Amino acid sequence: MFNPVEAVEQFIKHPSVSTDPSFKEGMCGARDHIAGLLKEMGLKVEIAETPLHPVVLARREGPKEWPHVMIYGHYDVQPADPIELWETPPFEPTIKDGRLYGRGSADNKGPMMVNIAGFAKLLEKYPDVPLRVTFLIEGEEEIGSPSFNGFIEKYKDLLDVDFILLSDTSSKSEDEIMITTGLRGVACMDVKLTGPNSDLHSGMYGGAVVNPIMALAKLCATLHDEDGKVNVPGFYDDVQFPEAWEREELKRMDDGEESLKEFLGVPALFKHKGYTASECIRFLPTLEYNGIGGGYQGEGSKTIVPSEAFVKISCRVVPDQDPYAILELVSKTLRERCPEGVTMEIEIGHSGGAYCVTPPDRSNTPADQSPVLADAFRAMDAAIKDIYGNPACYSREGGSVPIIGDLKRILGADSLMLGMFTPKSKLHAPNESLDIEMFKKGIEVSYRTLASVAKVEA
Amino acid sequence: MFNPVEAVEQFIKHPSVSTDPSFKEGMCGARDHIAGLLKEMGLKVEIAETPLHPVVLARREGPKEWPHVMIYGHYDVQPADPIELWETPPFEPTIKDGRLYGRGSADNKGPMMVNIAGFAKLLEKYPDVPLRVTFLIEGEEEIGSPSFNGFIEKYKDLLDVDFILLSDTSSKSEDEIMITTGLRGVACMDVKLTGPNSDLHSGMYGGAVVNPIMALAKLCATLHDEDGKVNVPGFYDDVQFPEAWEREELKRMDDGEESLKEFLGVPALFKHKGYTASECIRFLPTLEYNGIGGGYQGEGSKTIVPSEAFVKISCRVVPDQDPYAILELVSKTLRERCPEGVTMEIEIGHSGGAYCVTPPDRSNTPADQSPVLADAFRAMDAAIKDIYGNPACYSREGGSVPIIGDLKRILGADSLMLGMFTPKSKLHAPNESLDIEMFKKGIEVSYRTLASVAKVEA
Repeated sequence: MFNPVEAVEQFIKHPSVSTDPSFKEGMCGARDHIAGLLKEMGLKVEIAETPLHPVVLARREGPKEWPHVMIYGHYDVQPADPIELWETPPFEPTIKDGRLYGRGSADNKGPMMVNIAGFAKLLEKYPDVPLRVTFLIEGEEEIGSPSFNGFIEKYKDLLDVDFILLSDTSSKSEDEIMITTGLRGVACMDVKLTGPNSDLHSGMYGGAVVNPIMALAKLCATLHDEDGKVNVPGFYDDVQFPEAWEREELKRMDDGEESLKEFLGVPALFKHKGYTASECIRFLPTLEYNGIGGGYQGEGSKTIVPSEAFVKISCRVVPDQDPYAILELVSKTLRERCPEGVTMEIEIGHSGGAYCVTPPDRSNTPADQSPVLADAFRAMDAAIKDIYGNPACYSREGGSVPIIGDLKRILGADSLMLGMFTPKSKLHAPNESLDIEMFKKGIEVSYRTLASVAKVEA
Repeated sequence: MFNPVEAVEQFIKHPSVSTDPSFKEGMCGARDHIAGLLKEMGLKVEIAETPLHPVVLARREGPKEWPHVMIYGHYDVQPADPIELWETPPFEPTIKDGRLYGRGSADNKGPMMVNIAGFAKLLEKYPDVPLRVTFLIEGEEEIGSPSFNGFIEKYKDLLDVDFILLSDTSSKSEDEIMITTGLRGVACMDVKLTGPNSDLHSGMYGGAVVNPIMALAKLCATLHDEDGKVNVPGFYDDVQFPEAWEREELKRMDDGEESLKEFLGVPALFKHKGYTASECIRFLPTLEYNGIGGGYQGEGSKTIVPSEAFVKISCRVVPDQDPYAILELVSKTLRERCPEGVTMEIEIGHSGGAYCVTPPDRSNTPADQSPVLADAFRAMDAAIKDIYGNPACYSREGGSVPIIGDLKRILGADSLMLGMFTPKSKLHAPNESLDIEMFKKGIEVSYRTLASVAKVEA
């Protein structure tokens, strides 16, 4: 069997930034790397074209009566900027103090490898294991998976899976492992305000014209109230606030707000009144600014009234909010509140729905839940307790893997999500990293879970 | 005598951006170009070192009883960005439809040449003209002239001037010429808010942490009230609001707000209640945002909570506001209003005081005004009426030439300011240009004014 850490290192070397067309070669290299690994494992591998970045589809076929697991991952990564804040080059994997550094190490190249290696181990021990597995490794997760739904619809007949296994969610720490039972969705937009038809000399016009930066500040200042709530009428109408068991379970994993403040280096938090910070992140929707720009940004000063200013907004949505409806609500509110003297352009970006699943043995587990999934939940739970030394924690998570909701909707399949990164991993930020020990133990958990589903001894 | 238009063209070819150290060669080239011209005119030229960019100092000496005029200009220019909006390259002078395009064409390479050529013409006609002239051409105007005061103090004994002649202010149009009687000062600062210690994944932390962009928007949104006033306590305490004659005189030059809106391409203006747009620009102080930035600004989306956000602020100040006091007031207000959960850093930038002079034959002209200046005012007035066909208009202007106030304070000398650019000139913006006909007529006005001061026939 291949060396999983080396496989991740090789993977990181391919700079697969899906949002930027200049990284085409890195995308191609990453795809070929993962396809090669899966081929070596004896799977039937296809590089399936999509309108944008191809999907790596790899299958271990078998009789219909065998259980069928989809293993999901994504080979694309976030941009590396601000690149000057990296301590080691983002696309040169570097091991330091038991962690593997590099863009994609934790999102999703490392965690994805946990399940690939888990299955590789199972195949090595049981070459004839009665289990069908379909790997679906996409290249558009970081840009909202625009081709994913079309792809799933097209390949639907091949995808009669009992559940989806993936690792693209977080755990509390290297030995406090979470099984994620829900995800927030995401809905993005860019807002641009245009004032005067060109940048103006602030001496010649300043004091008489609406400065687009002022207008943008006034507009954005209206979008959150003093209680930490998003101040957009109707924003919370469809929110499923957390159930009592979820709030109770989360307490086990919650280090408290002082610890969070210290970790983030902030003197105060900003949260929805009546909820803890952990609850806000996992159970409640947000409206965040991802970027802002306009006018002169260089050294020194340039005394202009700029012509334009923009802000990039994303909302995290929760069950049962519809991301498109949220984008419409926010757009409507922005238009209503747009200051006089500027014109507004809104560009709707990518979006994806929220998701949740109820684990077995909870009072309200749906009657129609797949028994194969319930078994896998219990097997993973036991393996985590055994290998990491602590019982797993079930919780919804604040991040988004929009395709999880799509898979539920199109295939009717739920997802089993094993958290393989931690807050230390610095996802989407400089100095992203993967804990190597946690990673290796995860492979064993994945192996035992798949063995249990196949009903062979691990 | 040299060809003045060609001299400006050659001048523009030297990219003399003073704020950016990478333009050192352009600064040097521009300096040498202007020094060469003045040498050819037979002046005693010195490239006088300062802590930053040297000053070109050129003198025509003579007996103490001859009147002494300082001619001021600056060889440095604003940065050319956003460079993609230029229709012709900013440092390649291009003549189109009677206008000369290029960075610095109107600020200040063209207008400065008006007075150099005006004096060159006088010298050509009267090689022995009884007039002392000192040219002081600095290279730090666009960065707030940090070396200027020290320079003037050092050379004070040589600078026993009756008044200063310069063209670094605007006129209404190519044949409606203004003599500027006052200038706003400027006071700049950069404000940075820092929240979490690195960019955060908005799914993993969004909803619990103060987003620095949100904090910055909330902060900036407090700085202007609904009446268009700067909402900083004490901001207007020292403002000398305009006199009746100034408001009356300005009406002659005011095309009205509809025309301004159309020119700027904006649906509405934003101004101090009770004043026209023209008055706001010329008589009242401002707080403007020159640039804003933070988080992701590239293509597509990057779902982070950024660690930092910044805004560049500049205030235009008016008589008798002290720019340092204004920076302190604004800083104090920003600190008081800084939202919880972020830390604020304020960097004070360049600043310069406001200035005003009362032209002769106004009821309140100060008794101690230089009679040489009063003569020059009247001569320029007459020349403008004769050459451009319309009487001159006296008005304060919204821009800043901070050194004018410094010269008054240190040397006790007032300034005579002939407006040689118009709104069409797009100062500090892409596609800056100079009207060639207006420029040539200006040389004649300057020539006649200097001839009158020297008491020779023009």
